Amino acid sequence: MRLSQYFLPTLKEVPTEAQITSHRLMLRAGMIQQIASGIYTWLPLGLRVLQNVADIIRQEFNQTGALEIIAPTIQPTDIWRESGRDNAYGEETLRMQDRHKRDYLYAPTAEEMVTLIARDYLKSYRDLPKTFYQIHWKFRDEIRPRFGVMRGREFLMKDGYSIDLSEDDAKQSYLKVMHSYIKIFRKMGLTAVPVKADTGPIGGDLSHEFHIVAQTGESGLYYDKRLTDLMQAPHDQVDVDAIMNIYAASDDLHNPDTYHGDTSLLEYARGIEVGHIFYLGTKYTEVLKATITDASGNQIAPHMGCYGIGVSRLVGAIIEACHDDKGIVWPVNVAPYKVGIININNDNTDTQQICGHIYQMLTQQNISVLYDDRDLRGGAKFADMDLIGLPWQIRVGQKGVAKGIVEVVNRKSGDMQELSADQAISFLNTALN
Amino acid sequence: MRLSQYFLPTLKEVPTEAQITSHRLMLRAGMIQQIASGIYTWLPLGLRVLQNVADIIRQEFNQTGALEIIAPTIQPTDIWRESGRDNAYGEETLRMQDRHKRDYLYAPTAEEMVTLIARDYLKSYRDLPKTFYQIHWKFRDEIRPRFGVMRGREFLMKDGYSIDLSEDDAKQSYLKVMHSYIKIFRKMGLTAVPVKADTGPIGGDLSHEFHIVAQTGESGLYYDKRLTDLMQAPHDQVDVDAIMNIYAASDDLHNPDTYHGDTSLLEYARGIEVGHIFYLGTKYTEVLKATITDASGNQIAPHMGCYGIGVSRLVGAIIEACHDDKGIVWPVNVAPYKVGIININNDNTDTQQICGHIYQMLTQQNISVLYDDRDLRGGAKFADMDLIGLPWQIRVGQKGVAKGIVEVVNRKSGDMQELSADQAISFLNTALN
Repeated sequence: MRLSQYFLPTLKEVPTEAQITSHRLMLRAGMIQQIASGIYTWLPLGLRVLQNVADIIRQEFNQTGALEIIAPTIQPTDIWRESGRDNAYGEETLRMQDRHKRDYLYAPTAEEMVTLIARDYLKSYRDLPKTFYQIHWKFRDEIRPRFGVMRGREFLMKDGYSIDLSEDDAKQSYLKVMHSYIKIFRKMGLTAVPVKADTGPIGGDLSHEFHIVAQTGESGLYYDKRLTDLMQAPHDQVDVDAIMNIYAASDDLHNPDTYHGDTSLLEYARGIEVGHIFYLGTKYTEVLKATITDASGNQIAPHMGCYGIGVSRLVGAIIEACHDDKGIVWPVNVAPYKVGIININNDNTDTQQICGHIYQMLTQQNISVLYDDRDLRGGAKFADMDLIGLPWQIRVGQKGVAKGIVEVVNRKSGDMQELSADQAISFLNTALN
Repeated sequence: MRLSQYFLPTLKEVPTEAQITSHRLMLRAGMIQQIASGIYTWLPLGLRVLQNVADIIRQEFNQTGALEIIAPTIQPTDIWRESGRDNAYGEETLRMQDRHKRDYLYAPTAEEMVTLIARDYLKSYRDLPKTFYQIHWKFRDEIRPRFGVMRGREFLMKDGYSIDLSEDDAKQSYLKVMHSYIKIFRKMGLTAVPVKADTGPIGGDLSHEFHIVAQTGESGLYYDKRLTDLMQAPHDQVDVDAIMNIYAASDDLHNPDTYHGDTSLLEYARGIEVGHIFYLGTKYTEVLKATITDASGNQIAPHMGCYGIGVSRLVGAIIEACHDDKGIVWPVNVAPYKVGIININNDNTDTQQICGHIYQMLTQQNISVLYDDRDLRGGAKFADMDLIGLPWQIRVGQKGVAKGIVEVVNRKSGDMQELSADQAISFLNTALN
């Protein structure tokens, strides 16, 4: 994408309404536009990140055998009355009536919808296990929306729901999701800490929150260092059982007396909650009468689990975890573009030609590139490129081009290499493919 | 995907509540589940088609330089009051209040949101032209929702909005979108007919509807046969000017006296409206005060266009255009899976081995495959596979395997070839890649 034809309304000033780093940086980088309190339009750059985050979740969740669906945002209140959850979210539920005066609500989660799938279509133990999920918009009418997309009212969530024959099977599904969450957050370049949690209005008796470590996190986390070592381990064989048994607690639930490990391993960090998983038991299948026939011919209520990830919240949380004083530092897999090309001397035909060549070659290699071909001075382009945080920058100026070199800069480390244009193309192709 | 692990709740019976073919077939094929009148959950098979349709639109629209955004579904009524459209959709607008008693609505279109982008961020003629679009959920509270997803209340729409300096530029953007629509519908394997149309509550003075030809279509269309010849032409150079000037009218606007072509070329067909585009002029930019500075330094209101495609409606419309008495016949590019493998003798180790081999090889070649490995008799599998309409079927039975052959069947033509397993893999790789 050529920046002269793109839409990147960056701001030099720090917006006064934004209290936290990610909110400030998302506004300054032109990622979101506020429409009302807690309600945003996702502008082109922001939407690309949101889609990348969603795609990572979708790919990993599909690999577990989970099946994607889309449930309606507007749901009849009757089914929430039937499940007993009509008032579970209190005033956070956005309610409305249609033209026939029937009651509806904007769904904050989809347990009822998935239980209806089970009730209508899953008849036999042979139909299980099944996990359904959606990546879809939700609305919760927070009394004081704040922190940008970190605590918005309309937000994008991945919500998954497993349906199993027994409690044992359901806990296997729960572990499978834990496994996939560990892979998801690792793929996003984040350190995630799972901690035991309360179940709240969702119900059930087993629950974990996933926090990602960020200095600006809202929660305090105590955990045994072996946990994050395991979570960050580069191999694919994730030992979920081991992870489940290592000490981790949010500060409100932390009790030093229950920690039996080596105290020198007990760490403290700030974290941002980005995922929450629950074993639900038969709460929904019983009350909504979604029974199936087991192998002995008996009608039983299957066991469910539900699994959330705050997709739009993650965009903010990633920025909280990954930024410096110049702006955002995107992990490669979620970056809106992998490479930014800066033409420092925009009216120079040599730099134009080199930039055009690099842009064309990288694009042909399926590497996403944002090429800053605007008529601006180099300093403004450097500042914008640092602000929007693409992992790699290629700086092309007429002095370098005269010597046959361009500068390849790693946004995170700041390391700079002088390479020929073709070396730069080859280097980035190796680094990114 | 192995069907034994998938979710495909097909129905033998014809659902009585469904009045039209596409609704009946979508229910019978397990694509959607009705939650309330005009409100559906998209089940896994249906969602795959919906995503394919959306992806074709996204790819083609991105190629025009249009920039994707996501505007909120819940919008403050104030901005609709400011644009004068608060009551434009009458009782079809779903309204609600938040916990602070502020008025909101579930947006049926997004002219206001895009005009706010222009107002906040586009300052100079150098920032134009720009086209923004989203593929997002909408709600219109139809008094009598019917025909399944063809006239639902909650539906997925692609809505695009161009912003240009002048009327001439805006009409260029309009033509560019027409061009991309022609490519989009052709890529979906459909015959589309653009006809001049009224502008309704959107406003403006130039408008075209896009209808796809289907015997069960709701509208009658009169058009010069040269139009559909041009629209179906296999070359990429689409002559939009020629298309604009060839006679086409819906039956309510058809006037034989204004047709000056060869009467033997005047055709009549039934059509389903799947797209609608409008030149809006300065209606929104004036009233919302989204002015920009032109090259002479004057503040002017830019000219807009808006461009809709009914994404979820298209899924139904494609089925209306593409089915036979056995079920759906998906055009290749929107099919939920390209190939279905049927193991006719599921307990036979030879057919299992051949099916597994074909499944693995095609999947490795990035061809999406649904492998029917269920413990059902062959006849039930044939009926389900015909019903869900995958473009290619591979039927593997123990008699054929003993002779070293499998049957490759084209769902549309019914043509059957006897090939070895490896010939079948190679044939489909050539046909589909």
